[in-house]
Amino acid sequence: MEKRIITISREFGSGGRFIGEEVAKKLGIAYYDKNIINEIAEKSGLSPEYVQKNAELSPKKGLFAYAFAGRDITGKSLEDIVYEAQRKVILELADKESCVIIGRNADYILKDRADVLNVFIHGDMPEKIQRIMGLYNVEEKETVKMMADTDKRRMTNYNFYTDQKWGKASNYTLCLNSSQLGYDRCEAIIMECAK
Amino acid sequence: MEKRIITISREFGSGGRFIGEEVAKKLGIAYYDKNIINEIAEKSGLSPEYVQKNAELSPKKGLFAYAFAGRDITGKSLEDIVYEAQRKVILELADKESCVIIGRNADYILKDRADVLNVFIHGDMPEKIQRIMGLYNVEEKETVKMMADTDKRRMTNYNFYTDQKWGKASNYTLCLNSSQLGYDRCEAIIMECAK
Repeated sequence: MEKRIITISREFGSGGRFIGEEVAKKLGIAYYDKNIINEIAEKSGLSPEYVQKNAELSPKKGLFAYAFAGRDITGKSLEDIVYEAQRKVILELADKESCVIIGRNADYILKDRADVLNVFIHGDMPEKIQRIMGLYNVEEKETVKMMADTDKRRMTNYNFYTDQKWGKASNYTLCLNSSQLGYDRCEAIIMECAK
Repeated sequence: MEKRIITISREFGSGGRFIGEEVAKKLGIAYYDKNIINEIAEKSGLSPEYVQKNAELSPKKGLFAYAFAGRDITGKSLEDIVYEAQRKVILELADKESCVIIGRNADYILKDRADVLNVFIHGDMPEKIQRIMGLYNVEEKETVKMMADTDKRRMTNYNFYTDQKWGKASNYTLCLNSSQLGYDRCEAIIMECAK
């Protein structure tokens, strides 16, 4: 079955976002990343700034604090409200059109569809460090901290909401090491697998 | 850099062994799987029957029992002796010729070489069950037990000897779901990535 929807999960610095954007351009399909924040904000009733800070990257304080975070009368924390809005937006996007969706646990949210290709992009430490230093204009020490922090928050968020392990091969149709394979080859393989 | 050596780790029933054998045939390179047992036996001083039963699949009794298993005067258990022999055989094979090596933690054993492509093949439960039922002529209930048991032993052995997590995407250059991608496409992608 043709894969109309491609989800890209990725380690910070692996180029997963860039690869996803290139694939969307080459296939002539929609690309969803930060551009869905306004929609999530509208659905959740929270500000776009709050959503940008918290969706995908919550919880900041680790899983334990998260599990016991303040909840409203329905038992939902703010994080849960953002997550539920994000889930609805992603389900609607998948219904609407062929697209590439970056991060946001889209692989899990769309797990009941047969037309989804789930990809995980990771990379080797030296290449990831170089990429982040260039993109964010930061020193190596800060880069390593940013990487560890970002991936830890993505992982915690994913593991909490999906009951799966972030970065475990069996969650995804395809996992690629972009440092070893190169971005062009990653793009070609993803397009080949979407056919 | 061209990848002269391809290691294939796999879930039981995913067709990983078959895919590896086809890739070796198509590339015209050597294929190593059970056919290295005699060499491991010779190097370890143990019988081929013992090696066949224990290499890759030890420990039978779970990690805890394993860690405290009987050891000889040098502190090595029989499992350690088999593993050390296996490690030497795999290092020698990689020096000798281009090849495909199935399982046996070869990805980790060869981690210091730049000419190795590490692949992990997994699959969906219904397809894996069908494949094993056909190959081993067993009922579904027994198949599910065989699968869980074999993968658990592979995982325990891998995690114990490598300090990595079996099936975690970042250990491998490439991870493929053979049920979703099909065996032919898996073979084509592996050959493309070995170039």
